[in-house]
Amino acid sequence: MIEGGGLDGLRTQVRSVTGDIIHLVKKRMDIAQKIGDIKNRFNIQIEDEAVEQEIQNHAQELGRQIGLDRNFIGRLLNLLLTESVRIQKDQTSKQPDQLNHMTMFMRAKNLESAGKKIIHLEVGEPDYLPPRSVKDALVKAYERGQVRYTEPRGISSLRTEISKQFPGVEKDQVIVTPGARFAVFSAIVAAVSIGEEVLILEPAWPAYKECVEFIGAKTKVINTSLEQGWDPEFDQIKKLISKNTRMLILNYPNNPTGKIITQDILQKILGLAQENGIFVLSDEVYAGYAYSRFKSILDYGYDKSIMVSSFSKSYAMTGFRIGYAIGSKNIINKMTQIQAVAITSVAEPIQYAALSALRNKPTNNAQRIRKRLEFMNKRLKEMPLEFRPPDGGMYFFVRFNGDTKNTLDIVEDLLQKGVAVAPGIGFGKCYGNFLRISACQPIGILERGLDIIESVIRSR
Amino acid sequence: MIEGGGLDGLRTQVRSVTGDIIHLVKKRMDIAQKIGDIKNRFNIQIEDEAVEQEIQNHAQELGRQIGLDRNFIGRLLNLLLTESVRIQKDQTSKQPDQLNHMTMFMRAKNLESAGKKIIHLEVGEPDYLPPRSVKDALVKAYERGQVRYTEPRGISSLRTEISKQFPGVEKDQVIVTPGARFAVFSAIVAAVSIGEEVLILEPAWPAYKECVEFIGAKTKVINTSLEQGWDPEFDQIKKLISKNTRMLILNYPNNPTGKIITQDILQKILGLAQENGIFVLSDEVYAGYAYSRFKSILDYGYDKSIMVSSFSKSYAMTGFRIGYAIGSKNIINKMTQIQAVAITSVAEPIQYAALSALRNKPTNNAQRIRKRLEFMNKRLKEMPLEFRPPDGGMYFFVRFNGDTKNTLDIVEDLLQKGVAVAPGIGFGKCYGNFLRISACQPIGILERGLDIIESVIRSR
Repeated sequence: MIEGGGLDGLRTQVRSVTGDIIHLVKKRMDIAQKIGDIKNRFNIQIEDEAVEQEIQNHAQELGRQIGLDRNFIGRLLNLLLTESVRIQKDQTSKQPDQLNHMTMFMRAKNLESAGKKIIHLEVGEPDYLPPRSVKDALVKAYERGQVRYTEPRGISSLRTEISKQFPGVEKDQVIVTPGARFAVFSAIVAAVSIGEEVLILEPAWPAYKECVEFIGAKTKVINTSLEQGWDPEFDQIKKLISKNTRMLILNYPNNPTGKIITQDILQKILGLAQENGIFVLSDEVYAGYAYSRFKSILDYGYDKSIMVSSFSKSYAMTGFRIGYAIGSKNIINKMTQIQAVAITSVAEPIQYAALSALRNKPTNNAQRIRKRLEFMNKRLKEMPLEFRPPDGGMYFFVRFNGDTKNTLDIVEDLLQKGVAVAPGIGFGKCYGNFLRISACQPIGILERGLDIIESVIRSR
Repeated sequence: MIEGGGLDGLRTQVRSVTGDIIHLVKKRMDIAQKIGDIKNRFNIQIEDEAVEQEIQNHAQELGRQIGLDRNFIGRLLNLLLTESVRIQKDQTSKQPDQLNHMTMFMRAKNLESAGKKIIHLEVGEPDYLPPRSVKDALVKAYERGQVRYTEPRGISSLRTEISKQFPGVEKDQVIVTPGARFAVFSAIVAAVSIGEEVLILEPAWPAYKECVEFIGAKTKVINTSLEQGWDPEFDQIKKLISKNTRMLILNYPNNPTGKIITQDILQKILGLAQENGIFVLSDEVYAGYAYSRFKSILDYGYDKSIMVSSFSKSYAMTGFRIGYAIGSKNIINKMTQIQAVAITSVAEPIQYAALSALRNKPTNNAQRIRKRLEFMNKRLKEMPLEFRPPDGGMYFFVRFNGDTKNTLDIVEDLLQKGVAVAPGIGFGKCYGNFLRISACQPIGILERGLDIIESVIRSR
């Protein structure tokens, strides 16, 4: 039994080396814990991008010398670093549940069930209805028996209609998903593996980070600032790209800032993505609410771009949970496999409702929101707040002269006085003294809400 | 600079330990390569479940002893094992796409678009409509503006109505999901980590395996057989339970066999689960089509049970993509978090449609399917096939006297002659000479389909 004997001996060695690795990993975690102690004592931030990058580089260099695959080394290191950070954070800073627009929404709903009246300025949920044709489409779907399983990627007629909105796109480059959220989720699952990295520009919709963390990958954050007009710094993006970077997420018109970046900057970013072979996921759910020049990423012809959009905002169909993604056939096929595993397909009547919405486009939604934003702009300017008027979207992102705690107190105070707003901390940890105020209420109600906001701010 | 000095020293240690880890990992990969060489020389399969499992168990045990997180250890080992297998495999062995009921459905749909008439006996999709009240509910939802984000776990009225169907269940033990599929998916994601194990009784709906593999966990399969009347062997389940086992999946009335196990056997299995602290996920989507005594797992009072059901079969609402799960508040909360990340919630109008279906229960669906099954039973008995008449569900699972290749030829032949059936291989690799035939057609059409099936079988 030559093979058996040889194998058994080698397997014993594997077991023993695996044990040694685990002991060393434990040793590494213990040192990480000590570092965490010191950082906590001296109030130093736990994550340190520069140190992590140096460890990555050092490990990659060593891996290259001894002949280990660079992707594998990258994943291994990210796994170790993520766990180190988790351990360092664990001991002291038991953080309360992250406050964001959704937690505020749930709290506001609870207060409402208890009888309190709330003005909802915390979520981006249009207060107007979807097109009337949507109602008829639901009825027809029932009557025609269109209440069955569909192709996982969506019915052909809807994908065709969506593809027609974007020159050069074929229907097999389209997947219909339960909301833009699942489009983002499945794109990240399809393109990114455990231990790999995704670049996110903050402030940002928290869903990106949630989806990346869901699969055990790592986010690297590029902060943009009000001072720089919410423009991303090209060099900062460049510096954060490593061999493990798989995706960069863009979102213009931006939630929460309303920013639209120039075509020049986007072109430069896409060049960088191409050089490094990374996916660019462009969340364009607010494209229907652009008030300055906006061009979809699909017009730039980068083959690793994934455009995500939705019927939620443009067609006021948030509660229909239907969105879509457009990309290369290859990535869309992978996303389709993930959708088939998790949900089979979007409900067939909902797909027909979306089709009718596309064929009966509402013409006044963008104009309606724009008027409200203009009204809000005037009112907010009268308050001790700093902000940049939005180029698009449905929000103002405004800064107080104060700190996170101060701002959270204001958010709490506002809620007790009947106005729900979204705390800035939900969009990134550098934005603790910001608030996001949504334009999804009629002007009369917005006015009352802003009056209350002003009185609360001025009383501090 | 005490803190700086302390930190610098510790960081030097981190770097050095990281280097040691990488050297050991390289050593491990070198041994893996030697094992691969031997396996290739003696033509032994590269993946070895038993060996991998033993390494995982060993590592988890060590991790527990020295205090490392079990999810982290699972991920680390998974990374090491995947890389070992990659190194051992010289060239990739491309497998053909797995054939199952869904791939047959897609092929049948494609033939239909090309003008061919197909009798669909491959999917469990009722040919009758949902209750009429569903149509009115969709219209009302639109008119009342119930087209908005809801609580991620579903609207309160629907959860209350569902909870009322099961004595002792509270509404906060219920989550409404986009189909039973997402209920299964989120339950597995919530309860099982990378590298852990899920026990599945085959033949089985392929979704279970797909969801388990999606998160990088492992399935262990217990085969049941026609000879033993599709009863699971208790000792076989017991033998497969390890320290890494997190969940056992049951499905009665069973798809594809129609089996319902006795309450005694189920009680014994639950005892085993309790001893080992493992979750029991009970997929009861066919509970509305039980023709012998059936009791939900919820009646057994095991706190780690997760019951999954759906509106697809009982209410003929496949294309509405709505189902639910019931379990402890703890597991339902975790599933809710996953649902919030991936899709936010089920579409609000769809939730109201399901609520109206529950309040206007159809009374004749089970009777209708039962009559069809009786008809099919008579016809199938006249053919050279072996099977056990179903206790419930909507299928026959029949065996030929032949092998997998032979059976797939028959499936192909049938499709060309206008009848789509589901190949047994899609329900487990031991069932290659079985076919699943669905009762979701009126008797006239079933008759024609069965005539074609008989002629094709007899011609071989």
